[in-house]
Amino acid sequence: MSWTLGPEDLPDLARGAALLGTGGGGDPHVGRLMVQEAMREHGPVAVLDPDEVDDDAFVIPTAMMGAPTVMVEKIPRGDEAVTALRTLERLLGRRATATMPIECGGINSMIPLVVAARSGLPVVDADGMGRAFPELQMETFGVYGVPGSPMVVSGDHGETVTIDTGPDNIRMEWLARGATIRMGGAALIAEYAMSGADVKRTAIPRTLSLGLSLGRAIREAREQLRDPVSALAEALSTTIYTHLRVLFAGKVADVERRTVDGFARGRARFTSFDGTSTLRTQFQNETLIAEVDGEVAAIVPDLICVLEAESAEPITTEGLRYGQRVVVVGISTPPIMRTPEALAVFGPACFGLAEEFRPVEVVSEYHGSDRGTHSRPA
Amino acid sequence: MSWTLGPEDLPDLARGAALLGTGGGGDPHVGRLMVQEAMREHGPVAVLDPDEVDDDAFVIPTAMMGAPTVMVEKIPRGDEAVTALRTLERLLGRRATATMPIECGGINSMIPLVVAARSGLPVVDADGMGRAFPELQMETFGVYGVPGSPMVVSGDHGETVTIDTGPDNIRMEWLARGATIRMGGAALIAEYAMSGADVKRTAIPRTLSLGLSLGRAIREAREQLRDPVSALAEALSTTIYTHLRVLFAGKVADVERRTVDGFARGRARFTSFDGTSTLRTQFQNETLIAEVDGEVAAIVPDLICVLEAESAEPITTEGLRYGQRVVVVGISTPPIMRTPEALAVFGPACFGLAEEFRPVEVVSEYHGSDRGTHSRPA
Repeated sequence: MSWTLGPEDLPDLARGAALLGTGGGGDPHVGRLMVQEAMREHGPVAVLDPDEVDDDAFVIPTAMMGAPTVMVEKIPRGDEAVTALRTLERLLGRRATATMPIECGGINSMIPLVVAARSGLPVVDADGMGRAFPELQMETFGVYGVPGSPMVVSGDHGETVTIDTGPDNIRMEWLARGATIRMGGAALIAEYAMSGADVKRTAIPRTLSLGLSLGRAIREAREQLRDPVSALAEALSTTIYTHLRVLFAGKVADVERRTVDGFARGRARFTSFDGTSTLRTQFQNETLIAEVDGEVAAIVPDLICVLEAESAEPITTEGLRYGQRVVVVGISTPPIMRTPEALAVFGPACFGLAEEFRPVEVVSEYHGSDRGTHSRPA
Repeated sequence: MSWTLGPEDLPDLARGAALLGTGGGGDPHVGRLMVQEAMREHGPVAVLDPDEVDDDAFVIPTAMMGAPTVMVEKIPRGDEAVTALRTLERLLGRRATATMPIECGGINSMIPLVVAARSGLPVVDADGMGRAFPELQMETFGVYGVPGSPMVVSGDHGETVTIDTGPDNIRMEWLARGATIRMGGAALIAEYAMSGADVKRTAIPRTLSLGLSLGRAIREAREQLRDPVSALAEALSTTIYTHLRVLFAGKVADVERRTVDGFARGRARFTSFDGTSTLRTQFQNETLIAEVDGEVAAIVPDLICVLEAESAEPITTEGLRYGQRVVVVGISTPPIMRTPEALAVFGPACFGLAEEFRPVEVVSEYHGSDRGTHSRPA
């Protein structure tokens, strides 16, 4: 069912998208300001359920690309993503009938809404990452045969770089990353142009709705003085994401973070409130692995989300500060993201991790109502 | 007058192009092998005098881009420049009627011949640098109003990157350099697509012929046991380059050379045979300045050429070795390259040099037949 997304939905969507960003994805609140501005001028946005997209529709996904550490400081002018989409349309000789997120986590939940508001196009309620990932080949679109090329990178001086690497999405990412770095560390893109039939076959459905409902679940739990993490678990249980596990509760003990080769890379260490237990995470923009006392508790592509302990507000890797009180949760990804083809593109080995993928709902125990944490009243 | 260029012309052209490379431009001998191979398969190449190009002709210049230090090791597959030209044709919706060098010095004297042989297009006897320069905005085409964009960079995996920066050729260079670095440090390009009328207005005429005649002058002088530097001076005197000055003779004392940001940058020091005099040069791919005992003897855009002392064989910056016996000459550039507009794009300040441009024929004395050197019998 198609629906309308207006400015009143943006705070919940931003919170949910921050959660799905798993620590990366760029700050959705920066994107929220861009959407608000675009909606003020052009009105709300029509959202298409993927089941209702015509098979012969022509969908051009749009996004921002760059290191999150740069993206929070280098706010786009606003029309760059539309320029990217229009340049790709001209090259392909066909007008888009809709845009779509490539990534439902972080700022890229918002960029297609900016494009939709400014261009009058609807946005499809689906994406290609089902969370946030750091690289452009890490999309189910590509996993299931849609080439990312040709793609367009657009900068804030009106310049465009069009990249065509045929079926090689890794080389596309490599060249687009280079262009983005030379454009100042962040740029807007249009890529993976596809038919409506391809959307239905390759995209992760209803992830815009998911972000909105997760953000709303956290807010409503706070308003009703209920436990927001339990509310999140409930909201997820009826979706294709299904399982939430509390992995850890404690304080930030150490963060090591560098912007390298256009990515925010690093590690974080957390200590339990009683000091007996340690969580270590590694990230490349997004959190990739969580190890509790040396045992893997969750690993990419499952979601690892660091939340502010009392409010369950998602914390990005660039927002981690010494002494912050946090609860860390793992969320299962849908089956389309756990196939051998998918794990070959965004499984642990793709990030240089030696550990094999094991589902979070198998690896980490369900602790029931006490959520296995030390951070909250039982 | 149009003429045909065949494999028998290539050794002379390579030698002349190495001279016009002023130490950079990439090794023309690598390009020569590529042209030989293409001519063996497809035959010789038609060369068009610029005066005979129709005003409404459509000329797409082609070239290689990258650090010379990389280009000598990373030999192209051969069809990349044709791919760049064809991609630009498709984007612009128009077939090229000819190709043209952007640069008559170094390997880029040869690349358009590869394109011409493989595509059957003629090549225009003109270029946009009148020598070699390290950056793409440093072309008389751009100085006199032809935009470099859109341009195409093509790599050896069949990938293309199309860059459009509107009228901003410096930003175009910045983005193309980034793409070239990500393609392994060297790539093939098509840029500055223009009409025949623009060729006549903005290009430096007959620089392919010039390279050929200078290479021939050196060879014939050697064969006839005449002084090749005097022969060069004679050959230049009837061209728009006009003046040759011998700046120094001596030995290579020290070379400092790094590949930085996609360029070969460094300095060299030479000592006269009697040890009383010192020449210092600086280069960014090409030699930029020559100072004899602290006084500027020649400066960019005039040509500074380091030649092997006995044979007058041009030596590239990457070919400089301790102890080599050399003679260093300065050659005046044509008036089209010395206007205020031209000096604003490739004058000394554009390379971070504090010294002002002064013509080599004014700065350096003419020494007559003894050529002011210590390296040869008077």
